[in-house]
Amino acid sequence: MTNMLFEHTTLGQRVLFGTGKAAHHVVTELDRLGASRPMVIAAPPEQALAETATAGTTASLWWDEVVQHVPVEVADRARTAVAEHDIDALISVGGGSTTGLAKAIALSTGIPIIAVPTTYAGSEATDVWGMTEERTKTTGVDPRVLPVAVVYDAHLSATLPVGLSVASGLNGMAHCVDSLWAPRADPINQALALEGARALNLALRGIVADPDDIEAREQALYGCYLAAVAFASAGSGLHHKICHVLGGTFDLPHAQTHATVLPYVLALNAPAVPELATRLATALGQGLAEGQDPAVGAVYALNVLRETVEAPTRLSDYGFTAEGISEAVERVLAAAPASNPVAVTEENITALLTEALTGVTPSPAALTTA
Amino acid sequence: MTNMLFEHTTLGQRVLFGTGKAAHHVVTELDRLGASRPMVIAAPPEQALAETATAGTTASLWWDEVVQHVPVEVADRARTAVAEHDIDALISVGGGSTTGLAKAIALSTGIPIIAVPTTYAGSEATDVWGMTEERTKTTGVDPRVLPVAVVYDAHLSATLPVGLSVASGLNGMAHCVDSLWAPRADPINQALALEGARALNLALRGIVADPDDIEAREQALYGCYLAAVAFASAGSGLHHKICHVLGGTFDLPHAQTHATVLPYVLALNAPAVPELATRLATALGQGLAEGQDPAVGAVYALNVLRETVEAPTRLSDYGFTAEGISEAVERVLAAAPASNPVAVTEENITALLTEALTGVTPSPAALTTA
Repeated sequence: MTNMLFEHTTLGQRVLFGTGKAAHHVVTELDRLGASRPMVIAAPPEQALAETATAGTTASLWWDEVVQHVPVEVADRARTAVAEHDIDALISVGGGSTTGLAKAIALSTGIPIIAVPTTYAGSEATDVWGMTEERTKTTGVDPRVLPVAVVYDAHLSATLPVGLSVASGLNGMAHCVDSLWAPRADPINQALALEGARALNLALRGIVADPDDIEAREQALYGCYLAAVAFASAGSGLHHKICHVLGGTFDLPHAQTHATVLPYVLALNAPAVPELATRLATALGQGLAEGQDPAVGAVYALNVLRETVEAPTRLSDYGFTAEGISEAVERVLAAAPASNPVAVTEENITALLTEALTGVTPSPAALTTA
Repeated sequence: MTNMLFEHTTLGQRVLFGTGKAAHHVVTELDRLGASRPMVIAAPPEQALAETATAGTTASLWWDEVVQHVPVEVADRARTAVAEHDIDALISVGGGSTTGLAKAIALSTGIPIIAVPTTYAGSEATDVWGMTEERTKTTGVDPRVLPVAVVYDAHLSATLPVGLSVASGLNGMAHCVDSLWAPRADPINQALALEGARALNLALRGIVADPDDIEAREQALYGCYLAAVAFASAGSGLHHKICHVLGGTFDLPHAQTHATVLPYVLALNAPAVPELATRLATALGQGLAEGQDPAVGAVYALNVLRETVEAPTRLSDYGFTAEGISEAVERVLAAAPASNPVAVTEENITALLTEALTGVTPSPAALTTA
């Protein structure tokens, strides 16, 4: 045990979970709010899902102009419509962009949001908003944008393709693992992150084995919800800083970069947090063997999962080259959080990126001796 | 995996944790609230602790009339004083009765509470209030009574005697274990309950080994916080219904009854929830041996902890007799939650109480064949 020193903010929110229950849950939550003039926000591709989710509700307005990164002019048009129609609740049905538009409206109006996610984005569990004006994205944190209720219904995400589901689930897993040592990591968000990792391990294996496995889809929604809660609470750790550099400076694709880099960051950090490594190995379904090094066990557990779901294994497949390593290392060192349990050095980040480049099997030994 | 169907309400609250940091954290939370006229509520025995916890704060009023079960007339006097002094924040320093008075004031005034617990009561993490009028206790749930912030400082509970600490910690453990199958149990409050059990296992062993072990005191505060969060969310399970009957009808002492009965309820229920039993055994520091029955492992883990802390082992030590069993069984059957994973019967509750009466070593086999 070490001394506990932390500030943890728990965001108050209702979560309603039930496959096939979305329409029922939306009705009960509108009743709780005493709202009678809801606006349904759903992009054209999610129109049918939105009709299912709001089958018991009379919408005062449907809104289908949803654009990635929430352009300010789209938000302004939606706000004008909300005022004209005297809207008293927002029902968003869709992924991160749809939730994002609802948040932009709530930010200036205070109108409560009932979020019905159809992907594993996780934005519904955070009080973070973002909008784009003249190609510049502004983000902020405001309690008004946190949905008062989230309605999870696995039927609504059942048709998400396997590849996208795995990418999204591994992104959630990265949020969980990186939360363990992020700047505001504390025992509470660590526990939620490990529970998220447990659910996502079940989810990913299940979806890959059978895309129609609805219980696996439920675990994916649930795991990504916890991943978002933990990540919003704990902040960005070393993994996200590395991926931000690889994406921003080297234009590497988001999902693949996260899936590739994660085990190497775990291999670097796990030896310094043996108790968390032990719990992570257990969460991933691979309890430690008698006398096994916890770091080795945790990395092994993540490797097994990644093999099972055929996750990407090397950055060279996505355009990264050895020539990029020194610049990447320099940028990572500048951005690395002070909270990281292992001091980051030119040597160990170089070793990490070199291994990730060529897909050397992730292992703690190589990095800790670097 | 089974289908997930639940409604989970997360209560929004800040938790500030730090040994020796109470005064600092109280100041920062008052600043966040923009409050400048706080009232400090502390009973005379906690006066010195309250002075420590508010060393950086200028109180507009100190209030020391604190009475168990919050008599309405005490609450009314405090409310009058709050109005007269234009109070804009309540700082409660003490145990459940002190937090309870702050809640009674907040209920009618909406004034925010900063709770500084000095015991392991857990009331600070719930939106439940209680008041007593003419010997009748009324309780309710209201978002206004949930403290906006809780400041945990293990120095303030460092002098809690070992016996009381163990009783209080085992009470927290009972909240955690019983939450696993309570009426509103869901994966989220189960995860928090298991994390609470993990912390309380460390806490109890540590405090018994060395009452001055401040890290163990921290784990106790943290574990009892999670126990309260989980219990408030999940509700009362079979264990609490049994203890309510034994306390209410047979006048058995609260702490000893809880500590004695818990492993028998676990022995009854664990075979029906093997996955939770596995996780509980791990949380209690006794991972399952290869091929071990999860229920046997979980009960064994709890037994080991109870032996280590010399917990009470039989109800006959506290005035319960074989003559009381049939009436107790009848009352338990009437009160048992439908959510219990094992159907409760005259046979199995009779067996459970008979074993608890004489302190037969708790074991799943005896009860599941009853």
